[in-house]
Amino acid sequence: MVFAYQRTVRFQDTDAAGVVYFANVLAMCHEAYEASLAASGIELQAFFGGWDTAFAIAHASVDFFKPMVCGDRLIIHLTPNPTSRSEFEISYQVFMADTTQKPLSKAFTRHVCIDTATRTRQDLPHPIITWLNQWGETAPSPSSLAD
Amino acid sequence: MVFAYQRTVRFQDTDAAGVVYFANVLAMCHEAYEASLAASGIELQAFFGGWDTAFAIAHASVDFFKPMVCGDRLIIHLTPNPTSRSEFEISYQVFMADTTQKPLSKAFTRHVCIDTATRTRQDLPHPIITWLNQWGETAPSPSSLAD
Amino acid sequence: MVFAYQRTVRFQDTDAAGVVYFANVLAMCHEAYEASLAASGIELQAFFGGWDTAFAIAHASVDFFKPMVCGDRLIIHLTPNPTSRSEFEISYQVFMADTTQKPLSKAFTRHVCIDTATRTRQDLPHPIITWLNQWGETAPSPSSLAD
Amino acid sequence: MVFAYQRTVRFQDTDAAGVVYFANVLAMCHEAYEASLAASGIELQAFFGGWDTAFAIAHASVDFFKPMVCGDRLIIHLTPNPTSRSEFEISYQVFMADTTQKPLSKAFTRHVCIDTATRTRQDLPHPIITWLNQWGETAPSPSSLAD
Repeated sequence: MVFAYQRTVRFQDTDAAGVVYFANVLAMCHEAYEASLAASGIELQAFFGGWDTAFAIAHASVDFFKPMVCGDRLIIHLTPNPTSRSEFEISYQVFMADTTQKPLSKAFTRHVCIDTATRTRQDLPHPIITWLNQWGETAPSPSSLAD
Repeated sequence: MVFAYQRTVRFQDTDAAGVVYFANVLAMCHEAYEASLAASGIELQAFFGGWDTAFAIAHASVDFFKPMVCGDRLIIHLTPNPTSRSEFEISYQVFMADTTQKPLSKAFTRHVCIDTATRTRQDLPHPIITWLNQWGETAPSPSSLAD
Repeated sequence: MVFAYQRTVRFQDTDAAGVVYFANVLAMCHEAYEASLAASGIELQAFFGGWDTAFAIAHASVDFFKPMVCGDRLIIHLTPNPTSRSEFEISYQVFMADTTQKPLSKAFTRHVCIDTATRTRQDLPHPIITWLNQWGETAPSPSSLAD
Repeated sequence: MVFAYQRTVRFQDTDAAGVVYFANVLAMCHEAYEASLAASGIELQAFFGGWDTAFAIAHASVDFFKPMVCGDRLIIHLTPNPTSRSEFEISYQVFMADTTQKPLSKAFTRHVCIDTATRTRQDLPHPIITWLNQWGETAPSPSSLAD
């Protein structure tokens, strides 16, 4: 079950070349991540600022196949996957809303669960395991995760 | 008939004080303006970059009554009004989506219709008159507009 | 003594109309405010997130006289003024760096000193009084300030 | 000869977690790219919007080693390298300004030279060859470039 997020390209997303500024595509993907968390019942203000644990982005990458312009109606598919007891990855595909055949862009982020005070690694907490079960291709199984 | 735009506060909108960065409230209001144009059948890419006429923002102001945080579900009410043959104003009220009693913020923008090549004033074109008729408190009447 | 901040317009500041996106002019003015605080010895991370007092922006406005494009070298003049025991205002003028005759834009922000926990008004603290003395047109005098 | 760009982290760069929002690190790196172009005498408004050729970003990636906070004084080192007759890559290292030992972040972008009308590949034009010669580790040699 793939999480899908709808998003219209806005004037602020564009630059003087007339298309979406490259780094804003990653920001749109992060919006899809936020929407998927909210869809799993996670309260965003606490998640992004109030919890004892944070999910620091350690790596991000993005490929651009076709430019996007103001008013484009997009759909972003998101698939999270656990990669260790303390990490997960998310892959994103950005499509025009009327066709999900050829992506306009693909992106990828890697997140590390840390204690916000000590910035040391923590096991992924229960609400994130639930979110991974809900939207991931492969459900996380504690025994299959190596740190 | 008031135009209403729904918007969830995203992580990128916030700053290290934990609330929405002040200038981003104006950007959210501009999104509502874009959505109202699209709802009147105006093609946004052409409107914001391809037409011979542009609608330059000459003034903007914003008042902040309560802070907004990541995940807040907002509703923005927008009311445009013509102020001369070549200008219109838009007033915005930003509410929490569950109650439109006390606004969190109010904003205001003034737009001047100009020729993009010469940057001289132009009369408001037909699609904008239609948009003003659709969402404005008072419909524009050519005879009542003084330049 | 006017505080002057130099800033080059960057690609990200622009939009598909080829000029600086309107709300980004206010963000540039806020950068000038940050630079003026740092120039008075205020540590920015603490000021904007760690102090018990915050300086909430209650109002902002901006006028646009000429558009700015990518690569433009700007200079922003900033003048703060206290308006009560718990408030100050800042006025900004944005010029091309090679001439400070006609501003491209003028902006204005009003800041209220509050307790971050209770969000109630507080008297302006000592470091802000020092900053007002350093960069303001008129030095604040405790006896002349009415709340 | 490495190009070095100084940049102070601003309040707008941060998010509610108190650190720089991840995608903004890529935007800072793009600023360094713009500054290196200007340092080679390239006029930015024309480069990013007016030329017949554009340098579309096809790929970007970024690694985060340590978080950055408001007020941090950074230095970004940038090294461009041609990879074919129509492409170049740029690698970036983001350091605290007082020490260039351990980077806080590393990033990478790949740029394809295209005709803006047809969006087909073009050979890199002379001003970009000059820029590559000036700031690259290895000067481009037409004979060594394969498409």
